Amino acid sequence: MTGQQESNGGAPETVRAHVSQKRLDDALAALAQFGGRDDGGVARETLTQTDLDARRHLIACASALGCEVETDDCANLFFRRRGRTSLPPVLTGSHADTQPVGGKLDGAYGVIAGLELFAALNDAGVETLRPIEVVAWTNEEGSRFGPGAMGSSAFVEPSRLASYRAALDSDNISFGAALDAALEATPELKRRPLRQPIAACLELHIEQGPVLERAGIPLGVVTGIQSVRWYRVECTGSAAHAGTTPMEDRSDAMAAAVGIAHQLYAYAAGESSSQLRLTMGRWQVSPNSVNTIPGKVEFTVDVRCLDASALERFEQVLHQVTREYPWRGQVGVSCFFSRAPTFFPDAMVSAVERACSRVCALAGHAAPLRLTSGAFHDAMYLADHCPTAMLFVPSKGGISHNAAEETAPDELFLGAQALAYAVVELANQ
Amino acid sequence: MTGQQESNGGAPETVRAHVSQKRLDDALAALAQFGGRDDGGVARETLTQTDLDARRHLIACASALGCEVETDDCANLFFRRRGRTSLPPVLTGSHADTQPVGGKLDGAYGVIAGLELFAALNDAGVETLRPIEVVAWTNEEGSRFGPGAMGSSAFVEPSRLASYRAALDSDNISFGAALDAALEATPELKRRPLRQPIAACLELHIEQGPVLERAGIPLGVVTGIQSVRWYRVECTGSAAHAGTTPMEDRSDAMAAAVGIAHQLYAYAAGESSSQLRLTMGRWQVSPNSVNTIPGKVEFTVDVRCLDASALERFEQVLHQVTREYPWRGQVGVSCFFSRAPTFFPDAMVSAVERACSRVCALAGHAAPLRLTSGAFHDAMYLADHCPTAMLFVPSKGGISHNAAEETAPDELFLGAQALAYAVVELANQ
Repeated sequence: MTGQQESNGGAPETVRAHVSQKRLDDALAALAQFGGRDDGGVARETLTQTDLDARRHLIACASALGCEVETDDCANLFFRRRGRTSLPPVLTGSHADTQPVGGKLDGAYGVIAGLELFAALNDAGVETLRPIEVVAWTNEEGSRFGPGAMGSSAFVEPSRLASYRAALDSDNISFGAALDAALEATPELKRRPLRQPIAACLELHIEQGPVLERAGIPLGVVTGIQSVRWYRVECTGSAAHAGTTPMEDRSDAMAAAVGIAHQLYAYAAGESSSQLRLTMGRWQVSPNSVNTIPGKVEFTVDVRCLDASALERFEQVLHQVTREYPWRGQVGVSCFFSRAPTFFPDAMVSAVERACSRVCALAGHAAPLRLTSGAFHDAMYLADHCPTAMLFVPSKGGISHNAAEETAPDELFLGAQALAYAVVELANQ
Repeated sequence: MTGQQESNGGAPETVRAHVSQKRLDDALAALAQFGGRDDGGVARETLTQTDLDARRHLIACASALGCEVETDDCANLFFRRRGRTSLPPVLTGSHADTQPVGGKLDGAYGVIAGLELFAALNDAGVETLRPIEVVAWTNEEGSRFGPGAMGSSAFVEPSRLASYRAALDSDNISFGAALDAALEATPELKRRPLRQPIAACLELHIEQGPVLERAGIPLGVVTGIQSVRWYRVECTGSAAHAGTTPMEDRSDAMAAAVGIAHQLYAYAAGESSSQLRLTMGRWQVSPNSVNTIPGKVEFTVDVRCLDASALERFEQVLHQVTREYPWRGQVGVSCFFSRAPTFFPDAMVSAVERACSRVCALAGHAAPLRLTSGAFHDAMYLADHCPTAMLFVPSKGGISHNAAEETAPDELFLGAQALAYAVVELANQ
C-alpha cells in the first residue's frame, strides 16, 4: 500500500474513489445478457445451461482482474484477490441465479459490485492485509431446486449437501446431477473444501421492498433478517356435485379454507404493532372444477417477524383456529420451514454504517437508514459462520422477483462505493 | 299388441314385467369395460377413442335388438324401435360419455335402461303406437369440450352447433374435428337432421345427491331442475415479496379473494330457507408461490336454486360485496353461464309418478319422492322442445363424478322397470 493512498484518507477511501459507475453498469448489463428477456427481465435458473454460461463469463471476468478462481462441492464460485497475508479472507458477493423470471439485479448486483471492487483495488494499486474473496453462491433462489440458499448453507454446514443432492427439479433432474455437470464443465478450477474460515462477510443486495425508496434514502444498513415460519394447511372434506348436494350435507374444503384464512388475516391485522407479515401464497384445490365442491384444499402460510415471540403467538393461533373450525372435515397443519431471526453483530453493522454514511455524505444524501431484511439471503447462513452484515440499495416500487425490478444507476453506484469502503476497511483489520 | 297382454293390466305392465335385472346388470358391466379402471371408475371422455369404441358397442347392441340406428350432425346416436304408426316418437336415453374419472352409471344407466326396455318389449312381443327411440347424447359432461350437454342443446337449437364446433380440448383438438372423426367412423349410419319432432322425452338418471338415500326411497320423480348462474371473480392486486413488503403496502389478491368469498359463504348460510346452493370450486392463483404475495386470484362461483329470484338477490349481493371490498386492487365479476329453472309439465310428472308408484308398490317400497334436480341433464334442453320429465334412482352417499359412484342393483332394476312402464304408456298415447 503506498503512502500516497494512505494520505488521502486511507485505503477504504482510495478504493471507494476508484469505483467506476460506467464499468459497474456495463458489467451488470453484460451479465444480464445471460438469460436476458425482451421485457428487461432475466431467466437464469440455477445450473441451467444459461447459468453455466454466465458462470463461465464471471470466471473470465475475474481471471482478467487477476483473481484465482476456486470452486467447491456445491459449485460455489470463489474469486480470490490475494492480500499481504494469508489470514482468513473477507468475503463479499451474492448469487448469480434468478427466479424463473427475475430481474437483472437480485443477486447479480452483489457479485458484480464485488468484481468492481477488485477493479477499483487494481486501479488504486491497493494491496489489503487480508485476501478478499467474491463469491457467487449456487442456487440462492430455490425455484428450480428447493430449498433456496443451498450453496451458502452447505458451505456453512457441509452435512446438508447430501440431502440437497437428492432434490429434484420439475424434469426429475437431481440437484446432485446438475451440480456434477456444472463441476465437470469447469475442470480447470481448483476444488476446495466447504466451510472455509472467513474473517468477515458482507453482502450487498437490492432491498426488494419499499422502505428505502419511501424514505428517500439511497443506502440501507441491514441490522438483521426476520424470523420466518412456513406452514402447510390441508383441509380435507368431500368432493361432491355442486348442484345436487344440499348445503347442510357438504364437507366443503374451500369453505373451511376460506374460513380459516379469514381468521388468520384478521389476526395479522391486529398484530400491526409487531409488524408481523402474513402471506398465503400457494393454493392447491382439488378437483378444481366449477361445479364440484372442493374435496381438498391445501394452502401455504408464510409468516415473518423480527420478533420471534410474535411468530410463536401466531403459531398458537394457527393451531387453535384450525382445531376449532366447525365442520365435518379435517384440517392438518405442518411446519415445513422455520428460521429464527438473524441479528448481525454490532461491530459489523457499525462498519457498514460508517461506509454508507461516508458515501451518502459525499454524495449529498441523507444518512443511511437502519432496517431489517424481510427476505432471506445467503448472509443469513453466513451469519452462523462468521461476522456478517448486509447493505441495501432501494428497489423501485419495492418490486422484485419480477422483470420490472429496478434500481437507479446512481444508487447502484453508491452501493458499490459503500461496499468497497467497508470491505477494504475490514480487509485491513 | 295381443289381447293376452292387454288383459294383464296393459302393455306398460306387461313390458315392465319383462325387464330383466340380470340383463340390465350385465349390459351395464359390458359398457363399463370401455374405459373401465381398476378402482371401479370409468374414464370415457366424449369422442375419445374409448368413447368411439363404446359407441360402436352400443350400435351393435341396438342392432341386435332390431333397432334402426341413426345419427345427426352432433353425432348423437338414435336407436329406433318402430311403432304401429310413424307418429313422433317417445324419446328416452341419456349420455355415454363420462368425466375424466367418472362412475359407471352417470349417463350410461339411462342409455342401457333404454336398451333393456327394447329387450323387454321384444320379449313381451309388444308393438307400441308410436316409435320409441333411445338416444346417447354427445358430450353431456363438458369436461373435454365446454360447455356440457352439447348434443342435446344442439339438437334442440341447431344454430348452437357452429360455436360448439370451435371449442378446443386441452390438446387443441376442436370439437368439430372430433365430431367429424366420430361421424366418419360410422359411415353406415343414416344422418338425419337435428331438431326432430318428439312426442315426449323421459330421462332416467342416478340422483347424484343424497336425498333419496336419506329418505330410504328407491325412486324419485323429478319435477324440475334448479336455475344456475356461473360467475368468474377476478381479484387483481400486485405480486410482491412475502418477506419484504409491509402489510400496509400490500395489494394482496388472496386476502381480497378470501374476504369476498367469506362474505358470500356467510350470505348463503343466511339463505337456507331458499335452499340456495353456493360453490366456489375453481381457483387460479398467480404466481402461486409460498413466498410471493398473490398478484391475481380468479375463482368461480356456482350458485343454484329452484327459486330464480333467490339467484337474482345473490347476484346483487355479489356485485355489492365485490364493489365495496376495501383494498387497493380491482375486482371484476362476469357471469359466464346462466340458466333459468326448468319445470317439467304436470302431465309428464304424473306419468312418471304413476310408473314409479306402481313399481314401488309391487316391490313393497314406500311411495316415490318428488324432488328437483340440482344437476344439469340433457332433459333440461329437451324440456325446451317437447314434454319432458326425469326419474332418479338413489346415489350411495350422494357421490357422483367419482369412481366410487354407486347404486344398489335392485334400485337400478326398479328404475328400469319404472322407465319401461312410463315410456310404454306414453308411446301408446
